[in-house]
Order: sequence, then C-alpha cells, then structure tokens
Amino acid sequence: MARINENYKKLQEGYLFPEIYKRTVAFQKNNPGVELIKLGIGDTTRPLTMAVVKHLHEVADEMADESTYRGYDAEQGIMELREALAKHYKKYGVNLKADEVFINDGAKPDLANLQSIFAGNSVVAVQDPVYPAYVDSTVISGKTTGYKDGKYEGIVYMDCTEENGFFPDLPKQNVDLIYLCSPNNPTGAVATHEQLKKFVDYAQEKKAVIIFDAAYSAFISDVGLPRSIYEVDGAKTCAIEVNSFSKLAGFTGVRLGWTVVPHELCAEGTKPGEVQALWDRRQTTMFNGASNIAQLAGIAVLSEEGQEEVREVIDYYMHNAKIIRDGLAEVGLEVSGGTNAPYIWAKTPNGLDSWEFFDKALNEAHVVVTPGAGFGQRGEGHFRLSAFGKRENIEKAVDNIKKNLKI
Amino acid sequence: MARINENYKKLQEGYLFPEIYKRTVAFQKNNPGVELIKLGIGDTTRPLTMAVVKHLHEVADEMADESTYRGYDAEQGIMELREALAKHYKKYGVNLKADEVFINDGAKPDLANLQSIFAGNSVVAVQDPVYPAYVDSTVISGKTTGYKDGKYEGIVYMDCTEENGFFPDLPKQNVDLIYLCSPNNPTGAVATHEQLKKFVDYAQEKKAVIIFDAAYSAFISDVGLPRSIYEVDGAKTCAIEVNSFSKLAGFTGVRLGWTVVPHELCAEGTKPGEVQALWDRRQTTMFNGASNIAQLAGIAVLSEEGQEEVREVIDYYMHNAKIIRDGLAEVGLEVSGGTNAPYIWAKTPNGLDSWEFFDKALNEAHVVVTPGAGFGQRGEGHFRLSAFGKRENIEKAVDNIKKNLKI
Repeated sequence: MARINENYKKLQEGYLFPEIYKRTVAFQKNNPGVELIKLGIGDTTRPLTMAVVKHLHEVADEMADESTYRGYDAEQGIMELREALAKHYKKYGVNLKADEVFINDGAKPDLANLQSIFAGNSVVAVQDPVYPAYVDSTVISGKTTGYKDGKYEGIVYMDCTEENGFFPDLPKQNVDLIYLCSPNNPTGAVATHEQLKKFVDYAQEKKAVIIFDAAYSAFISDVGLPRSIYEVDGAKTCAIEVNSFSKLAGFTGVRLGWTVVPHELCAEGTKPGEVQALWDRRQTTMFNGASNIAQLAGIAVLSEEGQEEVREVIDYYMHNAKIIRDGLAEVGLEVSGGTNAPYIWAKTPNGLDSWEFFDKALNEAHVVVTPGAGFGQRGEGHFRLSAFGKRENIEKAVDNIKKNLKI
Repeated sequence: MARINENYKKLQEGYLFPEIYKRTVAFQKNNPGVELIKLGIGDTTRPLTMAVVKHLHEVADEMADESTYRGYDAEQGIMELREALAKHYKKYGVNLKADEVFINDGAKPDLANLQSIFAGNSVVAVQDPVYPAYVDSTVISGKTTGYKDGKYEGIVYMDCTEENGFFPDLPKQNVDLIYLCSPNNPTGAVATHEQLKKFVDYAQEKKAVIIFDAAYSAFISDVGLPRSIYEVDGAKTCAIEVNSFSKLAGFTGVRLGWTVVPHELCAEGTKPGEVQALWDRRQTTMFNGASNIAQLAGIAVLSEEGQEEVREVIDYYMHNAKIIRDGLAEVGLEVSGGTNAPYIWAKTPNGLDSWEFFDKALNEAHVVVTPGAGFGQRGEGHFRLSAFGKRENIEKAVDNIKKNLKI
C-alpha cells in the first residue's frame, strides 16, 4: 500500500510566482494594450556568446561522427571541464584539485540534493529573506514540523535586515547545516571577507557545514570582495560551494554548474575525504552527469575568448543594475544591492507592505516587481528587481517609475 | 554539528565495475599488445543522426540570437516536447495528456528521485537480478537495515530465473513500491501483456505503485509485446513509467528522458491528481529542467525523419545482438535475451561462477563480459553482453569466442 511522503503537505503553497502571474494577467485583461515590463524574474536575456556558439557547432559535428561521438562520460563531469574550473579558481588564489569539483546541471538541484549526504534530522539554518529552494528541500526531507508566522518550525532563520547590512549574525542555537548565499538572492548584498570568516570560524568550532551558494559570484567586480568562500582560511574544512554557469554565461536553460566538495571537508566523526566520497557515491548512484553538450560548451566559456565575452555580458547586466539603482534613488526610494550583484533590493515607500507596493508599481508604472514577502518574513516591506532584462525594457521601466509612480 | 547520512554506510561497495576495471588493467599489463574487446558496458557507439545534428546546429544559432535566445523553460519540460511524446504514445494505443509527461535528464535520476514523493518507510520490491540504481537509492533513503547473503534486509527481491522465464512471480509479502524493468537490464527478458497485467492487478488490489523502467522499449520490434505499461488496462491508476532517449537515439551523454505520472495514479488516501501534483512540486523545487539543447534535439528525434533514422540505429544494434546470440549458441552456451532487447544474458558453462567465467573469457577470448553476480544473487551463474558496440568489435569478439573459448 503505497503512501505519500507526508512532508510535502507541510509545504506552504508556492505562493509567490503564481500570485504574481494571477495579478499580472488580471491587470492585462482590464488594461488591454498597456505594455507591462517584467523586472521580477531572474532569467537571462543576453544570447550565448560567439565562442560558445562556435564550439556548439563543433560539438554537434563531433557527435555526428562515429570516430568522435561521445556516449557516457563520468557522472562527476568531463575531466577537462573539472580541470578548467580548478584552474579558474586560481584567479582568486584558491587551490582546488579537479576531483574536488563535481559538475552539475545547475545550482538548484545540488543545493537541495546535498542534504542527502547529511543526517535526516540535521538542523538547517537559512538567511531570511531566503531563496526558497533551500527551505522547501529542508521541509520535503522531513526536518521541520509546523509552519507559524511565515516560518517553518525546525529551521533556524538568520535575519538579514538594514541594521546588519543584510548579512546575518551567527545563529544562537546549535545548527548543523548553514545555507549562505553571496552575492545574495534576493537582497543583492555581498559578504565581505570578515563576514564570511566569522561563519567559517563558527562552523569549524561547532563542526557545522556551510553550503555556500555562489551562483552570482561572477558579478563581483570589487577585488576586495571574496568570490569564493575558499578565499577564507579554513573554509575547505567546513564549506561546500555551489556555483553555476546560468547567470555567468546565459546558461539558465542550458543547465550547467558545479559543486565543490573539498577533500579536507569533515563532518562529525569523519576523516578527510569521507564526505567527498559520500557525495561521489550520491552522484554516481543518482545522477548521470550534466549534458555533455552543455559541459563542452562550458569549456568554451572558460577559455580566454569566452571569458572576455562573458565580461561584456556581465557589464551589460551591471549597467542595467546601475540604471535601476539610480532611477529608484532619484524618486526617493531606499535602495541596496545592485553593485557586485544583479539584484536590487528596495524598501517600499510610505510603509506599504510588499504586495501593496506590487499593485502600486503595476498600476501606476506598469512594472512587475517581486514582493519581498515572497522570500520570507524579513522580506516584508521590500521588493526585488532583477537586472537581467533587456536594456530597452530596463530604461522604459525606470522611465515609467520616474514619471508615473506616486510616492 | 553536521553528521552524515549513516544509510550510505549500509551500501556495499560498488564492486562490479571497479573490479572489472581492475582485472582488465591487470590483464593488459601482463599481456601487452593483446587487443581486448569490451562488451560489458551498455554505452552507445552509433553517432547522433542527421536530423538531430541538423537541429542542433539550428538551436546553436537560435541561442546566439537575442530574438530567439531561450532562458529558463518550465521545470517539467518544453511543452512542444511533452506534446510530441504524448503523441508518440498514441502509436501504442496509449492516450496521455502532455502534462502527464515530465521531461527528465535521463532515466536514472528519476528512477531514484521518485522515492522522494513516497513515504520514507515504504517497502520496495525489485527483480533479482536487478539494475543497481533502484536498490542503492532504496538503501540511501533509509529503507533497509542490514545486508546478508547478497541481499539488503528490508528490500523484497523477486527472483527472475530460467524457470520463470526471467519474469518474477508476484511478491508474497506486502510491498508498497515495485520496480519493474522491461525489456530487462540485465536479462534482456521482455514482459508480455499477460505478465504485466498480473502485476497491474496486484498493484490495484494492494494499492501498490509500480515504477516501470521502459528505457529499452524502443528495441521491441515484436508487435505483440507491450512497449509501455499503459498498454495494460488499469495501469494508469498504479504505474509510473520512466523512459529515456539514451539508447533510443544515442543520447547517453546528451542526457534526456521522461517520466509519466498519470493524473489517475493514486496512492493510499490520495485523490486522482494528487500524486501527479507531488511530483510536479518535487520537480519544480529540486530540478530546473533538462538542458534546453537536449530537449530541442529530442523534438528532432521524434520527428518523422528522426524516427526513420532511429529505426536504422536500432536495427544496427539488434543485428549486433543477433550476431552475439548466434555465436554464443554455436559454441553451446545457453542464451536468452537479445531479441527485442539489447542485452544478451547467458549461462556460464560447466557450473563456473560468473567471476570465474569473466576471467576465462578475458584470458581465452580477450572479451570483457559483465559477471551476473554484479546484478544480485540470482545473477550468479550468468553473464551479460551488450549489443551497443561497434559492429567490427562485435564480430571480432564472437570470432574470438568461437575460436578460443574452451568450453
């Protein structure tokens, strides 16, 4: 008699994006002909770069030829890509071995799947506001009980507020796994070396493991800010880093990323190498590698030519971010994020709650924003804008806000 | 204090392929210059077909162009592909809605991930011999206790032997989830309509759920044999079907497949649609879709031109299978599988155990086989050969066996 995993019932409705969709559709129905500009979703709009596309054509031809056709590669990824990524980290002064880099099909699955190698009753800490995938996968795996005041009981929420510059204080309770995201989604805050060091020291002392989501690290241009948690001494003993080609190279649909599980990483009672071996076992058992076409394209992204092109794409998005930041500031909104990060996090004016502001922006400026409340209790009173749109839309949106938003 | 998932410790070493590798390397070291032919692994060797490659070039160009670039698609897959697959099923008289077809990145991950939506203490039944991924994911998710006589305690093993034509009898114990694989890996046995009906009736009566692995269904040419479990009345209420483009279209490295969760499917206490909604929630939370390049290539596979080309590829492999079957039979080995299935399952001669025969085939015929014991207790005394090799190697291997294997 098959029974379902009852933990799914604990999940609150995926309220955010369906509700945005519902309100947007209703607006369009009532206002035919009005052009809406969507700055809510974090999807890329710049096409793949020339180095990547050239390589994709070569790969297609290789796959058509019996003598160069590739079947299964290793579940952990094509060695040339793993080596190229290990080399990539040297730019930040981080030394990794290729076998510490596991290729994945984008950051989201691994951010959830990593829980598989840790105890089922682990206590998980997350930032609040938070990218929902960390939380929902924690609920599905049975680590929470009820839901109260916008929080799941059993999860430790670490507040990110204006007061602490949107980077959390250390948890007061004992926790086992700590999700940290920098540059942060949704707040756009970027952790400093000192901030990360505090968490690394804590994790070493308490034998906790940090799951570090660095999916937006390519947007950091300030050389003083860490682009990898491994720039912090000791992080290899206590941190797993997950990253992605999605935003870096327009691979949101192509699906490619990587997870670093250092050999030195330890959990309670393990020797160096044992946690890495567990992840290796998980991947070889339940994964068959990212698409080889995506992996070979990823090698092109990491080439010298590819990196130059990627730089241009990032500059484009970061110029979008600047336009948004400046425009919002001009109309008197309090803005953070948007430098070294592709997300702009702004305070709603006049004490509006985030859904009230969503409606206001929709009706007055015809701009779709993401209400902060969708990212957790501490997101209330804020909204998120994404810099991944097309330039003309970004300019139009900011123009509409300046002209028509009544603050 | 992070602790590991102790269930991983219950896993027996992934003994099979590392041991094959070890013995093969040792042989080559001691016998320099001798050419070994590997017929053990189920990896494809035929290149992608022209319709697919042509489409890949088009996709590369579309992704390079701002106006046709694609970012995120739905986690459940590109609708055109889901619709094309639903249409594909009509060939077998099976009516599915596109939203019942969830695109995945190959069969293996979903065959494991599906356990996430069912209760953690579900009792799992598997065929013996068995594709190891079903078993290992059951162990990792904590559904077993010890390991004894080649079996995990807590799993129900359903023997597949010569006596029952390598298709199991119904389990005597109560079970919740039943993995069935047809055409079978490793035995090459193909379930008849009547055999599947027996299991569907059982599942309906006991409210069990069948997870049906149809990854080799494209190799069925006998029109009397079911290519989908949904050809059996009632299967939609109790069976999830997982399939793949891997062997069908040479996509082993490209990574693409699909999982059908019918709207009608029910578990204990659920209404129609609820299990499907759980899988939808699982996928949107922990997966971001298969690579869009792979998905668009998959659409080309399902085109009329693509299907004709695929037919040729399958014929090529099935002719390999015939060469192997005939060759083994000629030297007096007892052979099954290899018709309507790309695997040949043979009995070791003279009561040799499967590793003894492995060594014999290696030393005398210079052919690498897969020892049946690697697939479970009931695999002992057998070995598996794969038809996915290149023709010239298949012919050489069979020639070597005929000339040099001392039986």
